[in-house]
Order: sequence, then C-alpha cells, then structure tokens
Amino acid sequence: MVYEATVSAPVNIACIKYWGKRDTKLIIPTNSSLSITLSQDHLRSTTTCRADPRFERGDRLWLNGKEEVIKENGRTWVCIEELRRWRRAMEEKDKKLPELSEMPLRIASYNNFPTAAGLASSASGLAALVSSLSTLFSLPQTPSQLSLIARQGSGSACRSLFGGFVAWREGLASDGSDSMAQQVAPETHWPEMQALICVVSDQKKATSSTAGMQATVETSALFRQRLQVVPSRMDAIESAIKQKDFESFAKITMADSNTFHACCLDTTPPIFYMNDVSRSIIQLIEQLNKANGKPLAAYTFDAGPNAVIYTLDKYMPVVIKAVQRFFPPAQDLEDRLNVMPAVEKAGFPMMFDESKVVKWEKGAVKGLIHTTVGDGPRVMAREEGLLNEVGEPKVLA
Amino acid sequence: MVYEATVSAPVNIACIKYWGKRDTKLIIPTNSSLSITLSQDHLRSTTTCRADPRFERGDRLWLNGKEEVIKENGRTWVCIEELRRWRRAMEEKDKKLPELSEMPLRIASYNNFPTAAGLASSASGLAALVSSLSTLFSLPQTPSQLSLIARQGSGSACRSLFGGFVAWREGLASDGSDSMAQQVAPETHWPEMQALICVVSDQKKATSSTAGMQATVETSALFRQRLQVVPSRMDAIESAIKQKDFESFAKITMADSNTFHACCLDTTPPIFYMNDVSRSIIQLIEQLNKANGKPLAAYTFDAGPNAVIYTLDKYMPVVIKAVQRFFPPAQDLEDRLNVMPAVEKAGFPMMFDESKVVKWEKGAVKGLIHTTVGDGPRVMAREEGLLNEVGEPKVLA
Repeated sequence: MVYEATVSAPVNIACIKYWGKRDTKLIIPTNSSLSITLSQDHLRSTTTCRADPRFERGDRLWLNGKEEVIKENGRTWVCIEELRRWRRAMEEKDKKLPELSEMPLRIASYNNFPTAAGLASSASGLAALVSSLSTLFSLPQTPSQLSLIARQGSGSACRSLFGGFVAWREGLASDGSDSMAQQVAPETHWPEMQALICVVSDQKKATSSTAGMQATVETSALFRQRLQVVPSRMDAIESAIKQKDFESFAKITMADSNTFHACCLDTTPPIFYMNDVSRSIIQLIEQLNKANGKPLAAYTFDAGPNAVIYTLDKYMPVVIKAVQRFFPPAQDLEDRLNVMPAVEKAGFPMMFDESKVVKWEKGAVKGLIHTTVGDGPRVMAREEGLLNEVGEPKVLA
Repeated sequence: MVYEATVSAPVNIACIKYWGKRDTKLIIPTNSSLSITLSQDHLRSTTTCRADPRFERGDRLWLNGKEEVIKENGRTWVCIEELRRWRRAMEEKDKKLPELSEMPLRIASYNNFPTAAGLASSASGLAALVSSLSTLFSLPQTPSQLSLIARQGSGSACRSLFGGFVAWREGLASDGSDSMAQQVAPETHWPEMQALICVVSDQKKATSSTAGMQATVETSALFRQRLQVVPSRMDAIESAIKQKDFESFAKITMADSNTFHACCLDTTPPIFYMNDVSRSIIQLIEQLNKANGKPLAAYTFDAGPNAVIYTLDKYMPVVIKAVQRFFPPAQDLEDRLNVMPAVEKAGFPMMFDESKVVKWEKGAVKGLIHTTVGDGPRVMAREEGLLNEVGEPKVLA
C-alpha cells in the first residue's frame, strides 16, 4: 500500500494588499486582504507527498528538483507538524487507521512558472504543500481551517486554498485562531474577469517582503492611516465583486496598490518595488481609463516591479494592444486563450492621448501572461505524482 | 529723479515640505514647513522695479528678457497691488512723499540658474519681486510681514525672504494674516552645512506642484496622517538645527521627503516626481550612511527628480566622490568652492558596500551644483539694474 497524494494549487494576486504582521511568529496580519485566484491552467505549484514506514527517518523535501532543508521550527516544518498533529488525533480516535503520522515523509514540489518570471511562488507552493498533506492524511478540516496552517507557512498562501475571489480575515484572537481565508465569490461568479501579468525587467535586488513589511510597521508614519482605511476598502471591494461593478473594483484595486507602495516609500530606509517601467504602465492604464471615461483596467503591483492588470474580457484586447505598443515584450505572448485575433482588430479609445505615455525599448517588459480567474487546489491522479519508486523526485534540478 | 530698486533673492530647499493648501486663493498651507536658504553666490533671481509717471499706463514685466502678461487677479498682480496699497497708505499719511503708487511700473527679472537645471524659480523669483518693490516703495514692513504678500505669489517664496534656516508657520487665522515666514537661525549659525544639487535627467513632464498638491489633499487616504506628523517633525528639526545635531536633522529631512513623495504616490491618479535615478541616489546615500554608522548626508526631493543632498563640509568631499562614481555627470563640476582637491583624496567609509548601489551611465545625472547656506535678499547697486533708459530689459531673451 502506497500512501501518496498529489495536489496542485494556484497563484493569487491581491487587490487589497497584505503588508504587516501583528504577530510575526503566528503570521497574524495587521489588516485583512483580498485576492483573486488565477487559473492553474497557466500558473501552478504541484506537490506530491508520500508517507512510507520504510523511508529513512526524517522528512525530506525537494523544490523544483533541488532538496531544501526543512529547518526545525521553520515555517515549512510548522505546517507539516501541525497537519501531522491533526492526523495523529484522528488515528488516536480510530485505531484502524494506518499510522501515517508516524511515518517519514517525502515531498516534491514543482512550480510551472516561466523561467525568470519573477513571480512569487511561496503562496501557491505552501498552499500545494498543505493541500497535498491534508489529502494524504484524509483530514476532515475545511479549506478555511487549513488556511490557518497555510497562513503560518506563508501569509498569502492561505488565500490560495480557494478559487475565485478570496478574503483573508485578519481576525481578533491573539492566537490567530480566527485569522483565516474565506471565499467571497467562486471563480464562476464573474467569468468576464481576466488578468494580464506584465513581467518587468529589473536590475535591483528587491527587499524581501518578510523584512520589508516589518520595517514598514516599525518606521512608517503613514502606515497606521492605511490600517484605518483598509476596512472600508474591504467592504467596498467585496460589494463591488458581488455586484460585478468593475468600475468600483478597479478604483479600489489601484488605490490600494498605490497606498501599499506609498507605505513602502515612507519606510526608513525607503523600500522601492516599482521602477520606471512599472510607473509607465500605471501611466498607460491611467490614460486608457481617462480616455474611456471610466476604468477599463486596474493595475496592481506586489513586492516587485511586475504589473498585474485586471480587466474584463471585452477590454483585454485593447489592453494587450496598448501594452505591446508601449512596452514591446522581448517574448511573444503564448496565446493559450486565443486573444490575438481580437488584439489585431482592437482600437484605442477615441480620446486616448498617446503623447502622455512613455514608449519603452523592446524588452523593458520581458513577457506577458494572459490568464483568467481560476479554481482552488486540485487533487491530481496518481500518475501525475512527482516522486519515483524510492521516494525521490522524478525530475531533478 | 529715477525711482528704481534692484534686489536679488535666493532659492530655498525645504526639509519639511510644503504640500497642500487649506485656502487656494490666499495660499494658506495645510502644514508648516522649514527650508534652508541657499547661497545667492550660486543661484539667485534678480529683479529691478522702476516707477515712472512718464511710462505708458499699465504695469509691464519681463522674465529672463521675455515679456509676461500680468493677469488681473493673478498671483503676480496680487503681490504688486498689495504692496502698492501699503505704499498708498504711506503716501496718504505723508503728503511730501512722491506718489509712486500712482505710477506705472516696469519690472525685469532674471534667473542665473544653469540652463535646463530644472530648478524651480518661482520661490526666488517672487521673493525678488516682493523685495525689490518694497525697497522701491521704501516700505517699513518687516520681512515676516512681506512674507504674507510673497506667500500669495508663490507659497514657498515666503521662505526666500530670509537667509539661513527658515520656517513658514501655517498660522490659524482664516484670512492668512498669521501664515508667515520667520527665521529659525541665521546663515552664520551653522556654517558647516552645505548642499549638493544633483540635476537629474527626466523624459517625463511632471505634474505641476499647484495641481499636484490639491489632488493629494482631495484624494490621498494617507495625507491626513502626514498632517498629524508634521508638527512634531517641525519641533524636532528646529531643535536639531539650534543644537547643530546633524544626525537628527538628516533623519527628519529624509523621512519627510519620503513621506511627501509617499503622499504623491497615494494620490489618484498617482503622482511620481522621483525616477529610477532619484531612487538610486537615495540608495547611495542610505548605503553611505549605513557604512558610516550614522547619517553623513541627507537627501531631499522636491516636485521633480533632482536630488538636493545636505551634508556638512567635512563630509562633502566623500559625497561628491560617491555621486561622481555612481552617476558620472555629463558636465564637470563648476568648482567655485574649491572642493575637488579634497574629493580626489577622499575615501569611502570602510563598511561601504558598493555592490548595493546601481551604477549609472554617464549623463543620468546632468550636473552637480555645490553650494552653501546663504543670506536673504540683497539690495543691489543702481548699476546692477536690469532695465535700460526707456524701461525695457537690458538683455532680451
């Protein structure tokens, strides 16, 4: 009997940003956040877990074929031990269950992201780990309960346990027991919503988000005001999503991205994630929105220079055309959603003022990824497993 | 008898920024601000005013040899009329005075700034206008009283009526009657303080500060928090200046520059004044300060990409050496203060990590201006006058 599970988990990109912890050990955030889960057809982390009493003692983990040390009391270790504890509780109640909690684990995880896309993989990676282990252990916990564990692995990972539109409630409890993710609307709710990821080149090494967010909490004079503003933004964007009110959704998304980066800039020493290309993408979207009379697209930036542009399917062709015009990408769009025929025919809004946007040389944007809103973690077939017979990764780095 | 006065006035660069008006007509600011007056030996606006009953009716003004229309109820017009009103009051009390208030004016103003330096000239320009007119009219008002008028021409102009370290008190009165500048310390108080202006190239046309600051007041969620923070920063920086505590001065100056630009970024649509070169200059100063164990220099940015670096004379050589190393300027430094011999000999702090700073191609910084703290408006000799015999500018554009 082989005890094994393989699960893939999606990337999520926040519209209301997570930035700051009020408990750094338990990863309890200073504010609630909200994200959209992107389709796993394009971007995903896949993780296989296997438990086997014949394995040598101690758990082992490979990321993209390269072994990573599971540091005791480290974030990955905490997630594994918490899930094992839940499994052990089940085994104690039902002595007929195989004692998986006693067996060493072998874990292989793989991100399918385009090389050097500069996309954060910790959210999808930790979500895939937690989902695959809970599947292996046949845990009865709901995704929201699992999100309590995933959160401790990597804060925003908790939101990758759901598809669609997902809120992470900061919670009130000091032990973090109510700081969990919940679905605001499923991926089927607003199928017109799409995303375009603009992968931006950068020569600087960014401040890690873990270090950056605590520096903001400790030194930014403006940060506390953001915390005052987020609750009303959360209410407003949830209502916009429920009503499929793109205009409100877009305004709140852009405002919160800007407020987040403003708090980074207000940190001592200041943290910069956006660069001149990022700023020009903002300028382009602002000009398109102005020309359109109301927002047709919303930009948002995480802890790096890449832009994620949320827009509706009907506007996506003009957005892609505009981005390709002003930021000729180094690589052609991998057109899995067959949008290029519409891009060729698309026209800019009449009032669009091209002179207000800086045109960049080819390669300032490396490439584009066009994708949709997607579902939560997917349990995969046995043959998709990433471990070979002896419990090592099939594909090595 | 010729009634004429020529006055030169200095540039000032704020450490606590002016950004936002609570009365846009009277130019009453949302917060107090504090600046350092830079030496007129390097940067100045010079203005000649002449009153002559034989001039054709109506006032005329030339800026750098090019005639500008004095718009009725415009900012320049308001300054001229207010000063004329004060003169008229004097003439009514003392009938022996020549009736200058009845005579048409001819005004020529000239900025000596290096071409395309991208330095704001409105502060020094309006200060020179107000000073030269008050000299022509022999007004008894103090510089602080004159600052009430200069403020209405261009907010920060009120601070250019003093040398040294200058505060603009926001005041409480709704008519702006207590919103005036005052000297915190004279230029002789801290002679070690110097400034290095880094003129940064930019391809974008910036948002005007007049439009930008009101957009921030109206749309930024974080802005109100800055207003909460400024009073304590004002107290702290005034005390740092009085005690010549460079470390505190530097920390507050950098923090307030960053808070100001954070509020710009938090505006809808966001306003960007700094670019990637500006950000790299910040990075350089932060690395130098870190390596030094305490701040040896402070950066500050106004509504544009140029950096102004405040430092003490003993640190200036290493600052210039570092800027020239990482941002080789297109033009050589005009070395009026004879600092280059010390620059050649200067060494970086032991712990300075060059790998943390981006090195730019030649010309990313166009040029450097090395200057000192300076005095307030200077009344010039008759032969320095900018108007010819018939009341037109001697040098045309």
